[in-house]
Amino acid sequence: MHTNNLPINPLPSWRDGISKKAIIEFVESVTSTDSPNYIPPMDRIAVFDNDGTLWSEKPFYFQMIFALERVKVLADSHPEWRETQPFKAILEDDMEGFLSGGMKALLEVLYATHGNTTTHEFEQIVLEWITSARHPSTGRLYTEMIYQPMLELLEYLQSKGFRNYIVSGGGIEFMRVWVEDVYHIPPEQVIGSSIETKYEMRSEGPVLVRTPKIDFVDDHEGKPVGIQKFIGRQPILAMGNSDGDLQMFQWTAAGKGPRFIGLVHHTDEVREWAYDQNSLVGKLDKALDEANQRGWTVINMQNDWHVIYPGKA
Amino acid sequence: MHTNNLPINPLPSWRDGISKKAIIEFVESVTSTDSPNYIPPMDRIAVFDNDGTLWSEKPFYFQMIFALERVKVLADSHPEWRETQPFKAILEDDMEGFLSGGMKALLEVLYATHGNTTTHEFEQIVLEWITSARHPSTGRLYTEMIYQPMLELLEYLQSKGFRNYIVSGGGIEFMRVWVEDVYHIPPEQVIGSSIETKYEMRSEGPVLVRTPKIDFVDDHEGKPVGIQKFIGRQPILAMGNSDGDLQMFQWTAAGKGPRFIGLVHHTDEVREWAYDQNSLVGKLDKALDEANQRGWTVINMQNDWHVIYPGKA
Repeated sequence: MHTNNLPINPLPSWRDGISKKAIIEFVESVTSTDSPNYIPPMDRIAVFDNDGTLWSEKPFYFQMIFALERVKVLADSHPEWRETQPFKAILEDDMEGFLSGGMKALLEVLYATHGNTTTHEFEQIVLEWITSARHPSTGRLYTEMIYQPMLELLEYLQSKGFRNYIVSGGGIEFMRVWVEDVYHIPPEQVIGSSIETKYEMRSEGPVLVRTPKIDFVDDHEGKPVGIQKFIGRQPILAMGNSDGDLQMFQWTAAGKGPRFIGLVHHTDEVREWAYDQNSLVGKLDKALDEANQRGWTVINMQNDWHVIYPGKA
Repeated sequence: MHTNNLPINPLPSWRDGISKKAIIEFVESVTSTDSPNYIPPMDRIAVFDNDGTLWSEKPFYFQMIFALERVKVLADSHPEWRETQPFKAILEDDMEGFLSGGMKALLEVLYATHGNTTTHEFEQIVLEWITSARHPSTGRLYTEMIYQPMLELLEYLQSKGFRNYIVSGGGIEFMRVWVEDVYHIPPEQVIGSSIETKYEMRSEGPVLVRTPKIDFVDDHEGKPVGIQKFIGRQPILAMGNSDGDLQMFQWTAAGKGPRFIGLVHHTDEVREWAYDQNSLVGKLDKALDEANQRGWTVINMQNDWHVIYPGKA
């Protein structure tokens, strides 16, 4: 299942410092068979937030950008959208107007762009977008805006017998399409928000239809609920970057024995973005306070990471 | 991850015949690297119903027996139950009276016996029951009423790189407590019906509280929905025993390439039970017709299995 060979330097993009040291010490401590903290492989569950933890999330969650761009693609067959909010605002690139619609506008766009397809059709739509769409300011593919140091961490943990799970507020079916290629995390290890699907027998055979109805919101209190639902074990390592991860941190930390909690702090406005308590996307306030109080590892992107994105210093 | 060593006889409790031959031919065909039907390990997903497929389900689903016995345990702290249906009927061993209450009575008993505990407390309650309660007619522990031939099949598939999932109408948290020991299926590979849980911060730390509200019913149309939700891949092998498995069979069979569908037919009134289309529990009618029409493998327990339960011919 996994090798016990520790590469000479398992985390080359991490600068030597407190964060890297804490990670390696924890992993060594729970995987060395002669350690008093030894944890058997079946219990080595690691959970990772996605947006802002494994890839960037600015100017908006990338899945939101997908939805907005999808509105424009679908607009041809919805002429009424030119006169109907929130679609009108999106088609006119009026982000302020769109955001002023609040949760109601968000859900309408979510349902219009994520519902009313079969699961197989939705996979194709996401696959096409994720392999071609480019980020507005970096010009990169979104999958090129994943964090190289976190990739190395995922690989390191996997080599030490951990099973890495994504536990994200993002859409489970949106992520599953590409995370296996990009993070080497298989679809069955992805937990996320979902809309309800319905089994339907059609003339061409059975399909699962994505209905415009929220099934589960995997954020805040939803994260420990999702972890229990999908995994049924308490993780021993959790990484996130925002207040939406706080309950996942608390739930992970509450397990008996050694636990590792890591908080990615966005501090690098030159190479990525710098934001925390005042950010609309990825707000980090209470979780940072609790991390500092409880001695969780706060990863400073500017200081702790040699590189941010793959192939770019 | 797995060995390629085929034991000389991988299914010793299966009599030589069409069913055993079909299983072995399918497994060989999708796992031999020189086969045109080769399927890589990551896609070798096998799904199994539990009640009536991996263990017995008579006179009632065993989880129902757990619930009824639990009512008696809890009755001391609920004196009002002596005068309130459906609890009164249960306390008086009046099964007909209880069943006459229909779905409403069932849900009331489910909520009273499965809700209002934390997840950790519920695990302890189930663990205590499953390791001590005995079946009314066989006197066996319920975990001694699993099917030896299916155990061998699970082990055989696992040795050939399959990942075995349970996909049951039974409660996910009820099963997870014991299936790892009994079937070697880890909790994260168990899909079942669930009630909602709620994250709560208590003075002793965070807990997940089981609330008296249905979250998901993993039966009939719910089975393919649950498979997509939890696994995100279409299985290549499915086994069940009742009409509640029909949609799981259809969904599995609809995948591209070779697929295996197996239907356990309860035909052995001497060693187990014999029932199908007229049974309240494990009703098998439409799925048997469709299996016969489509050439799915119908396993005849009386003819195909040397032994039923472990350690007993």
